[in-house]
Amino acid sequence: MNSEAINLKKVGMHKGLLYETIITTKNSDNIPNAAPIGVLCKSENEIVAYLYQGSHTLENIKLQKKFIVNIVNDPEVFVECTLSDPSPQHFKPYKDYFFLKNCAGYFTAELTDMKEVDRKDKLGSSNLNIIKAQVEDIFICQESIKPFNRASFAIIESLIYFTRLELADEKTRQKYLDRIREMSRLVNKVGGLKHKKAMATLLNRINK
Amino acid sequence: MNSEAINLKKVGMHKGLLYETIITTKNSDNIPNAAPIGVLCKSENEIVAYLYQGSHTLENIKLQKKFIVNIVNDPEVFVECTLSDPSPQHFKPYKDYFFLKNCAGYFTAELTDMKEVDRKDKLGSSNLNIIKAQVEDIFICQESIKPFNRASFAIIESLIYFTRLELADEKTRQKYLDRIREMSRLVNKVGGLKHKKAMATLLNRINK
Repeated sequence: MNSEAINLKKVGMHKGLLYETIITTKNSDNIPNAAPIGVLCKSENEIVAYLYQGSHTLENIKLQKKFIVNIVNDPEVFVECTLSDPSPQHFKPYKDYFFLKNCAGYFTAELTDMKEVDRKDKLGSSNLNIIKAQVEDIFICQESIKPFNRASFAIIESLIYFTRLELADEKTRQKYLDRIREMSRLVNKVGGLKHKKAMATLLNRINK
Repeated sequence: MNSEAINLKKVGMHKGLLYETIITTKNSDNIPNAAPIGVLCKSENEIVAYLYQGSHTLENIKLQKKFIVNIVNDPEVFVECTLSDPSPQHFKPYKDYFFLKNCAGYFTAELTDMKEVDRKDKLGSSNLNIIKAQVEDIFICQESIKPFNRASFAIIESLIYFTRLELADEKTRQKYLDRIREMSRLVNKVGGLKHKKAMATLLNRINK
């Protein structure tokens, strides 16, 4: 695959948006691992991900310096990979990698940079590694490929809360407003310019 | 269009799932109206929707006995139609109907049944009309057409809360569990069999 063919738009990923994907890696015994990870599309051939210290995915990437990002449309696969390690027959080898058999598409990525950061949130502080990687080979496995981005849903959820604001008592109203603010933070984290503009329009109306 | 061609699968809608759409109607003065409405795909050529008493959409459907369901991918359009009435230049006529210019696809629907019901929820009781309609003409306007269904999103959200459960203090943990239960109710309302199975797997794990 020549370099000009490498463009994440092929798998429906656009610059600046964060997508829910499943990253497959392998350990020193060649045992594959799969984990749901949010992947930020930094440019058409570069991605960024935040990985928790101590996770198998991070350990494997440190070791192998490469991994595969699987675009998965089926939420059942996300459940499976969150609750347990999928059995080996769910994986298929490609070159020196493994990918998920039932993915809609996948691409290989080569580690280019890694940085340790401390993140403090309401759950306490955690050790994160920011990894940057170069996209190499891109493959489409299913006709309809649409990577999961949570921004549109967050906007729809907010609109549903918005339409209920007037009907609600004060306590419920506060709960709905909290949820809209939470969804707004989510949109700013994972969405594109259009999502952010749409959310801003809604917040402006609410603040009036 | 002959009758065997009428199948909501053409616009990506599958039996048993509820989709977020925008319904366009018109009043007795031929003035178009657009409102975000959840539409349940009852069969390949039949839909069901719940409409609030007093809404323009319901009044117009009672009057005209027909309407258009627009499949819209752009969340900005949902925001616009929720916050205000879109200006006339956003509409385009088709036969005796209006549809939204920037929709990904649309279909005409003819009212076949209407029933008034009382719904009691935590926001009090409300007067709803359940309308049933027959799908007539289906049109695809954009290459990539994927109607909004909230079930996959609800599962992803639940998984994210699930992975945080262990890190959270007791109060936050309760909040996350409440949210997962809320998302579970949503999946049962809007999702298909696969979504419900995936959600059940997650709940089983949590209850263990």
